[in-house]
Amino acid sequence: MPRYRLIIEYDGTPYVGWQRQENGPSVQGAVEKAILSLTGETVSIRGAGRTDSGVHAMGQVAHADLSRSWKAHTLRNALNAHLAQAGERVAILDAVEAADDFDARFSAVRRHYLYRIISRRAPLALEAKRAWFVAKPLDHEAMHAAAQVLVGKHDFTTFRAAQCQANSPVRTIDRLDVTRAGELIEIRATAQSFLHNQIRSFAGTLKLAGEGKWSVEDVRAALEARDRKACGPVAPPEGLYFMQVDY
Amino acid sequence: MPRYRLIIEYDGTPYVGWQRQENGPSVQGAVEKAILSLTGETVSIRGAGRTDSGVHAMGQVAHADLSRSWKAHTLRNALNAHLAQAGERVAILDAVEAADDFDARFSAVRRHYLYRIISRRAPLALEAKRAWFVAKPLDHEAMHAAAQVLVGKHDFTTFRAAQCQANSPVRTIDRLDVTRAGELIEIRATAQSFLHNQIRSFAGTLKLAGEGKWSVEDVRAALEARDRKACGPVAPPEGLYFMQVDY
Repeated sequence: MPRYRLIIEYDGTPYVGWQRQENGPSVQGAVEKAILSLTGETVSIRGAGRTDSGVHAMGQVAHADLSRSWKAHTLRNALNAHLAQAGERVAILDAVEAADDFDARFSAVRRHYLYRIISRRAPLALEAKRAWFVAKPLDHEAMHAAAQVLVGKHDFTTFRAAQCQANSPVRTIDRLDVTRAGELIEIRATAQSFLHNQIRSFAGTLKLAGEGKWSVEDVRAALEARDRKACGPVAPPEGLYFMQVDY
Repeated sequence: MPRYRLIIEYDGTPYVGWQRQENGPSVQGAVEKAILSLTGETVSIRGAGRTDSGVHAMGQVAHADLSRSWKAHTLRNALNAHLAQAGERVAILDAVEAADDFDARFSAVRRHYLYRIISRRAPLALEAKRAWFVAKPLDHEAMHAAAQVLVGKHDFTTFRAAQCQANSPVRTIDRLDVTRAGELIEIRATAQSFLHNQIRSFAGTLKLAGEGKWSVEDVRAALEARDRKACGPVAPPEGLYFMQVDY
């Protein structure tokens, strides 16, 4: 059975998250239904990251085993046609044949996320559900300085959800950069893997640094506390985008 | 009665357009309702441009006469609270007192629009209703070259809607630039005023130039025909953004 690597974009707003669940529509379920409509096969696909409800993707990756061979553009176009017909807010950016041992989750060597904050006085009309609206002014340089405390290999117990299923709270953050373009503040995070809610926990904490409520030392103390209660408020899902996976 | 200048952002998707109409919800109506909720006054506001259904704005301008004086930030925040409560996709970016003779429509000296095209193989998930999806590759340099034919003072009968109410088809286009950033192609148009559907007519015609179907000379011939039937297909509303008005 040929294996395919799917690159997937989605608007996470109407979904319970990436993963198939009993309690509502999922992105994984939408793609699996499109495969079923196209091929008649009930397949289970595996994604590189289990994004939460409301979290978006510009480059989620999944693998799927299909019984017959497809030309890449035919498979992509046919899946997109079925997704559109079902009214899904999901698009297949690319669908290419992969090696038999390619695994979207376990072969990943680096994952890239973006967290978008819009800091201005007026609420968001055009960017509603596409960014975190913060009415207070934020000092992005203070946020970037605080972020550097979190780069490297650490025990991130403070910045992981209570329900996180990872065996270890230790992760290595390769990059956590904060930049600004006008009213848009972007946090870019790269690591081989992240804990559950880790980037939203980072974003919520960095916002406190941007408001001047937390110093760099406060962020360091929160990290070193290794205690979930030391974390700032978790930022909302609508600012988070799963951008890219490197293999 | 103090006069206020409102700067307005909106997602045009759920509206019949800027202008109040019998057949559905309008942006003008949404703002007037927010003013009524706040002040108890039934006012009629005037916008700088009558955008069509599905057209967005990042900087529409309107003026409103209110019976009492407001601090700018109080008025903006209160209107935004009423708009949010009504579930409108409209935000007041700014609300400042203006001169008595300020008129959002007639005092305007320049209007700036943006038309966004995303040119790629896969349909739009995140940017659905926020850009024109064009599956074919487009040569933005050919589009820019063709656009320069349309800059300057011309009879734009070819590029105006049949239902356009302007007395004269003559307009002066100050700027019509086409640029690309990855899969995003942006057309930026500036003039004192535009005819109905003029920018969407430009965008549809420039797309033909980008596909290589029309040469610069074909665009010139269409302009010189002064005949609506010589126009390329009108581009859809979801790519168009009313960006700014200069006074």
